[in-house]
Amino acid sequence: MAKMSSPTETERCIESLIAVFQRYAGKDSNAFTLSKTEFLTFMNTELSAFTKNQKDPGVLDRMMKKLDVNSDGQLDFQEFLNLIGGLAVACHDSFRKSQKRV
Amino acid sequence: MAKMSSPTETERCIESLIAVFQRYAGKDSNAFTLSKTEFLTFMNTELSAFTKNQKDPGVLDRMMKKLDVNSDGQLDFQEFLNLIGGLAVACHDSFRKSQKRV
Repeated sequence: MAKMSSPTETERCIESLIAVFQRYAGKDSNAFTLSKTEFLTFMNTELSAFTKNQKDPGVLDRMMKKLDVNSDGQLDFQEFLNLIGGLAVACHDSFRKSQKRV
Repeated sequence: MAKMSSPTETERCIESLIAVFQRYAGKDSNAFTLSKTEFLTFMNTELSAFTKNQKDPGVLDRMMKKLDVNSDGQLDFQEFLNLIGGLAVACHDSFRKSQKRV
């Protein structure tokens, strides 16, 4: 058996993104996309710190519509990554702004 | 102080992406972008399992050019996320194909 070195932080992160997507996408018959219900479960479980602060009840509906680029009512892995990327950019920008203030 | 619950896998992943980018982007005077040198250091350290299997020595040069959407010779955080997303999609596709074979 080939010797496996422990994964780097970036490799662990890529693995996590795939594992999380598959965990939530696998809840209904189509294991390769997130339905609206699966998307809501994902958001309310994995990103509850974000969702519980949203006062507008329509925000998740609008996010799903915006992320679903091909409008098939499902999010594929690329569309899911756009969500993670958007959140990461928002966090990173807020970090940059907080650094500039110091 | 507000009670902090432990981060979810998705939150940890978003934090990791930001931390890794800042670790490598912070090596020269511009702390908010990856220069070509910083990109090569990142690839050869964090993704060496990928880079060491590349027989073509020009592959990293071409990746940098393709990722640098605004052609400023630097990768910003969004351009960096496109790299991570591209690798994650490639891994996910290869996983799907391997599942179909079973």
